[in-house]
Amino acid sequence: MPRDVAVIGAGQTEFGEHWERSFRDLVVTAGVRALEDANVPGEEIDSLYVGNMSAGQFVGQEHVAALIADYAGLESVDVPATRVEAADASGGLAFRQAVLDVASGASDVVVASGVEKMTDLGSTDTTEALAGSADREWEVFPGGNTAALYAMAARAHMTEHGTTRRQLSNVAVKNHENAVGNDYAQYPTSIDAETVESTAYVSEPLRRFDCSPASDGAAAVVVAPADEAEKYTSEAVDVVATEQASDSIALHDRDDITTSKATRRAAKRAYSEAGVVAADVDVAEVHDSYTITEVIAVEDLGFTEKGQGGKAVEDEVTTADGDVAVNLSGGLKACGHPLGATGVRQVVDVTRKLREEHEVGLTHNLGGTGGTAVVSLLEAR
Amino acid sequence: MPRDVAVIGAGQTEFGEHWERSFRDLVVTAGVRALEDANVPGEEIDSLYVGNMSAGQFVGQEHVAALIADYAGLESVDVPATRVEAADASGGLAFRQAVLDVASGASDVVVASGVEKMTDLGSTDTTEALAGSADREWEVFPGGNTAALYAMAARAHMTEHGTTRRQLSNVAVKNHENAVGNDYAQYPTSIDAETVESTAYVSEPLRRFDCSPASDGAAAVVVAPADEAEKYTSEAVDVVATEQASDSIALHDRDDITTSKATRRAAKRAYSEAGVVAADVDVAEVHDSYTITEVIAVEDLGFTEKGQGGKAVEDEVTTADGDVAVNLSGGLKACGHPLGATGVRQVVDVTRKLREEHEVGLTHNLGGTGGTAVVSLLEAR
Repeated sequence: MPRDVAVIGAGQTEFGEHWERSFRDLVVTAGVRALEDANVPGEEIDSLYVGNMSAGQFVGQEHVAALIADYAGLESVDVPATRVEAADASGGLAFRQAVLDVASGASDVVVASGVEKMTDLGSTDTTEALAGSADREWEVFPGGNTAALYAMAARAHMTEHGTTRRQLSNVAVKNHENAVGNDYAQYPTSIDAETVESTAYVSEPLRRFDCSPASDGAAAVVVAPADEAEKYTSEAVDVVATEQASDSIALHDRDDITTSKATRRAAKRAYSEAGVVAADVDVAEVHDSYTITEVIAVEDLGFTEKGQGGKAVEDEVTTADGDVAVNLSGGLKACGHPLGATGVRQVVDVTRKLREEHEVGLTHNLGGTGGTAVVSLLEAR
Repeated sequence: MPRDVAVIGAGQTEFGEHWERSFRDLVVTAGVRALEDANVPGEEIDSLYVGNMSAGQFVGQEHVAALIADYAGLESVDVPATRVEAADASGGLAFRQAVLDVASGASDVVVASGVEKMTDLGSTDTTEALAGSADREWEVFPGGNTAALYAMAARAHMTEHGTTRRQLSNVAVKNHENAVGNDYAQYPTSIDAETVESTAYVSEPLRRFDCSPASDGAAAVVVAPADEAEKYTSEAVDVVATEQASDSIALHDRDDITTSKATRRAAKRAYSEAGVVAADVDVAEVHDSYTITEVIAVEDLGFTEKGQGGKAVEDEVTTADGDVAVNLSGGLKACGHPLGATGVRQVVDVTRKLREEHEVGLTHNLGGTGGTAVVSLLEAR
């Protein structure tokens, strides 16, 4: 790419059930927090990207980027406002497009935001809307919602790699423990494995506490040319790679459902672009829409050998003081998963950690069961 | 931008009611036609953009770019697949993002596609889904669908500029006449002004034949670096500008509803970027979601003076052999308006004309009542 890019500001709303706040309130709040963090006045923004999965289905609103630019007061400064969508990888796409926009030289200061308002439903229900991430005709109509599809992946992983029910629980326990103290998290509460295993089956072997919740929330980051970041902030972090890859949208078209080809493709390119290896990464926000999703992801990202993802928590590979601290925020599981917001929220959290003691951060955002993956690498200055 | 870009291939499906063909069939058909036109094998594609407004509401499917990459066989060649959305300007955004992707150097050969499947409805109706382009909370809940909002603009234009009911009819008559012989058009049939004026009011003063229809269809173009275009085709056309702008999403927040600030902003930047003036343009595909939309657009694009758009047909400014041939395809009115496909279909049609006798072409794609506008300029080689 013609020039390097840095994150100069980051902000988010609290994730949770916001009955009193509308879709537009959420994203404008996150955007204002990111701009304040970046010390960037609104009139310096050159363009806006919004990651959003299903505002059409959830709140009857399309054309959401123009709506947000308008309500944020950016209409008066005339910025192109573009919504991108790839199910719950929409936020990752928004971040990546913003980085490409700056890298290309077309824009200087760009806001990447993500938002979803999942409560306050209009004409749909949450499971139905979520199922839009899978192949509606060939997976959903025959009965496979996303939980059922991930349940098949979990069962296959147990059979092929010996992953246990308790190891899935460990992921939930770790992520809830990490969320304690995160003021933005939806469920910043410790739980134990017995609690996870006492919740009802959503789709066997996955129980309720294996699943990320339905959430309202928004997140935003401000990106700018790396060599101009100091003009705005002393807390910039460098974006050293952002890669996006695809896989078949339907599980039944894949050779192996215990791995995500899109994750491996995106990670391989990102590591290569950044000139780092998995072992260099010391903090990561990983897509844990279900506990099994994290188990598979830590393998595909190279944090463990293939088949060893189930042991990553007990072996202290992915714990807060492990080789790579995975989901210090609480992840999708405990921080919450407002679909289109998550990919941007991951960048917000990694940025915070890189401003403190960590050196190399990774974000991993998946669409549905992995039709789309975005992997980005960031480094402390 | 670091490098120049050309359109090297263009294709589309027939627009109409395709009860026998699914969402994915449509866009794959258009994509294959564009690739064949470009003489580009699938494995040379570096990335894919899809413009789509409301597949979530129309067919329950989100994550549509991954779906399309998969069904087009592009999954095996591992391309990032990104859906962009800005109501019925989604296609314009897809084209623009594809151009930026090549211009930035990130990709070489990129497909921009657009698609909408508006018949075969699931849980919504067409007017309801379309209304997602407006401000759901402050325009639609109080009763303003898009036809009603454009009716207000039409009434204001009549009052302020003396535009007549017959002048609106003239736009429909011209565009239907232009569509005759277009094998891809939904309604390639001549009509007269009396016919338009005998159709029922949808929202007074707009009648049924002032409105573009609900359509199924898809379109695709292939873009590549301008200096590599000859490798693929002798029929490349150059993209000399593509600009996107925003305005308030709601009509009631605008100073003047007889003009589109987003169109004027995007056009001004596009003309400046390309180093051309409105008078240089000899062929244009203009967003005529309603007849009044074209009247306003031809003013905002500089083809007539402000207030003279109503006379553009009778003065032979915008007729097939006028100063600038506007909507030779039949436009949204007669060619059809599969929302997310339209912005790409406009590029397909302008490309065809620039391969023949025209020199400088313009596309103008609007989201809803103008919260988003995309204006692109293309030139024959």
